[in-house]
This record gives sequence, structure tokens and C-alpha cells, in this order.
Amino acid sequence: MELLDKLNWRYATKAMNGEKVPQEKIDAILEAASLAPTSSGLQPFEILVVTNPEIKKKIRAIAWDQSVVTDCSHLLVFAAWDTYTQERINKVFDLTNEKRGFKSEGFENYRQKLLSHYPQREAEENFNHAARQAYIAFSQAIAAAAFEGVDSTPMEGFDEAALDEILNLRGKGLKSCVILPLGYRDTENDWLAGLVKVRKSKEDLVTVIN
Amino acid sequence: MELLDKLNWRYATKAMNGEKVPQEKIDAILEAASLAPTSSGLQPFEILVVTNPEIKKKIRAIAWDQSVVTDCSHLLVFAAWDTYTQERINKVFDLTNEKRGFKSEGFENYRQKLLSHYPQREAEENFNHAARQAYIAFSQAIAAAAFEGVDSTPMEGFDEAALDEILNLRGKGLKSCVILPLGYRDTENDWLAGLVKVRKSKEDLVTVIN
Repeated sequence: MELLDKLNWRYATKAMNGEKVPQEKIDAILEAASLAPTSSGLQPFEILVVTNPEIKKKIRAIAWDQSVVTDCSHLLVFAAWDTYTQERINKVFDLTNEKRGFKSEGFENYRQKLLSHYPQREAEENFNHAARQAYIAFSQAIAAAAFEGVDSTPMEGFDEAALDEILNLRGKGLKSCVILPLGYRDTENDWLAGLVKVRKSKEDLVTVIN
Repeated sequence: MELLDKLNWRYATKAMNGEKVPQEKIDAILEAASLAPTSSGLQPFEILVVTNPEIKKKIRAIAWDQSVVTDCSHLLVFAAWDTYTQERINKVFDLTNEKRGFKSEGFENYRQKLLSHYPQREAEENFNHAARQAYIAFSQAIAAAAFEGVDSTPMEGFDEAALDEILNLRGKGLKSCVILPLGYRDTENDWLAGLVKVRKSKEDLVTVIN
């Protein structure tokens, strides 16, 4: 299928050529991230879109000096909620009721279940859970970028605390978890561009239980 | 774009009609999961594909009695490595060298970096990291299913330890982290089927730093 062709075309681009990605493609990639499913529909993360050259330079310095951080067109930063709070949960449930135009007992009971459970847990447990949801959106953004013919570089290799400081995330109750430079491959200067894509054999990846 | 239309069509299906998903679609969905990017290319997870009715029944019992677990066509279980070991890391690097047909100093140095770092960390930290990688594949499977017109239900609501026991995962050094029933929506019996998809406003999700 067409999507598989695009996913095969994709690779973790190690050199980008500085070319700008059109805004409508960026919008489509962000829309795909927004449409990603998340636990209880909470979408417990935010996405920062960095194009400012000075800020990109600062981020590159705390990201193993990877050139894609500055040579990309747009740098997406996925930052998850540092914890679940009553306020954050209520905001999502209130918005859902508003958009649907009605309240239901089942949904309100579910709200109470989350309220009586999530805010009482350790912040770290909540952040780890929120980060997984951010990864679902991150992955959908990667797939959408490939579908649009836009290159991307999935990156965990950066100093999270330093990035949080640069973007003032902690003050907003957020912690960065993963970043995604978007742009166009500079094939000639990318050592990875010509190499075969390697994946585990299907036998090592998949077990069928019939 | 076409992918966005499909992602809009997708929803967390709460009732399925038992219809079988053709094998070529299952293969495409698994291929998309396999193509997902992972940290250092380690693919630190396995996917179990359950169609056996008895096993599905056992899983439903430890998954809040959700009907989709038995009424789906195929149940995907994403199980992440319980930790990173020397053996697991070496297997991936050896496979990569074999497929590419050469060894490089840079890549071998990178192997040593991982070997001197990952196996020494706490198993829990490693599992949390591996689980995030599994979520990237999980999300790509969801997108591919939607693209193929196959419904899915992203589910964290199950007893992980009980599922590990049912599928004998711990013995293989795996821990379940998320499951994905695949099948076809039973619109008439699905309370969620007719409801509006609700997402945070773009203002609440995205911050642009120009």
C-alpha cells in the first residue's frame, strides 16, 4: 500500500539541507499528531514548534551537536504533562461535554474514576504514562511526515532538563520527552542515506497464537 | 490528505462484529509496526498476534471484560523487553552488519557505548525506555490499520501481569505494555461510534516559537 511505500522511504535523516517545509505540510503533520489516540482522550502533552535560529542553535548544543537540529526547517518538541491534576482532567472532560452537547452518567462516572486515581499517584508514574501518550502522537507525526514526503529525525538524544530550561517547560508543568526535526534530506552529506534499512526478521518480531 | 481522512475516520472502536480481517491487511499492519523507528534501531519489543478464541476469552477476563477482545479478528499484544542485555544489543548490531555487508568503526564504537551503558541500568528504567519504543510501533500499526480501513481499539486497560502469565511472556524476557484489537466496527452496538471526535484546540496543543 501507499503508506508502506512512504514508511519504507522514511529513514532517520542525519543531514538536512535547510529547505523550508511548506506551512500546509506542517499543519497536516500537527493535525495527524492531534488525531492520535491517547489514554482516556487526555492528550497529556503539548507540541512546541521551533523555527527560531537562535533557539535551534541552543538546542543543538544540548543535543550532541546534531546538525539536523539547526538544518531542519521546523523542530517539533513533544513535552508531556509532568503529572495529572484535577484541573487538567476536568478541562478535558468539560471540553468533551461541551463539544458533544450533552453530559452522560457513564462519562461522568469515568471522570470521577480518573479524578480519584490519577492525581494521587506519584508524579513520576504519571509523567511516564503521559510520555507514552506523547510517543503515540510523535509516531503519528512521523508517519504523516513520510506520507507528505517530508523527512524527519526521531531524536531522544538530548539533555531533557536543559531543553526544558531553554523552552521554559517546567514552569508550564511540562517535561520534554522526544524531539522531531522536520525538513529535507541532504543525501550527499548523510552517511545513513545510502544504507539498507535493517529490521528484525518477521519470525523474531511476530508470534502468532492461533 | 488521504492519511488525515483515514485518521479522522478512525476511532477507538468499542464494539466489533466478529468479521475476519484478511491476512494481507494484517501483514501490512505488522509491516508498518516493523518499519517504525526505534531508539538505536533496537526494536526492543515483540508483537503477539492472538486469534485463538480460548485465549482471547482469557484475556477479556483480565481486560475489564471489554467485548472487543473476543469480537475482534486479531488481537495484537505489544510486549517490550524487560531490560536491555548485552546479548540483545549484540544481536541487533550483528544483524545490521550482516545485512549491510560491512563493519564500520563508528557503528562499532556506538555498539560499545550502548553495551557499556544500557545493561548496567535498572531493569525498570530499561523497560520504560523499551515500552516507549513499542508505543511508536503500536501507533504506526494504528495508522496503518486506519489506512487499510481496519478498525482498532488502543487499550491499556488490562492487567499486565495476568496477561504476561497467559501468554508466558516473562519467561521470554518480555512484559506486555499495550494491546490492539483489530476488526470491524459494529456501529449499531457501539456507544462511541456516533459521537463527535474531540481534540484540544490547536492553541492548547501547539506553541510556535519563531
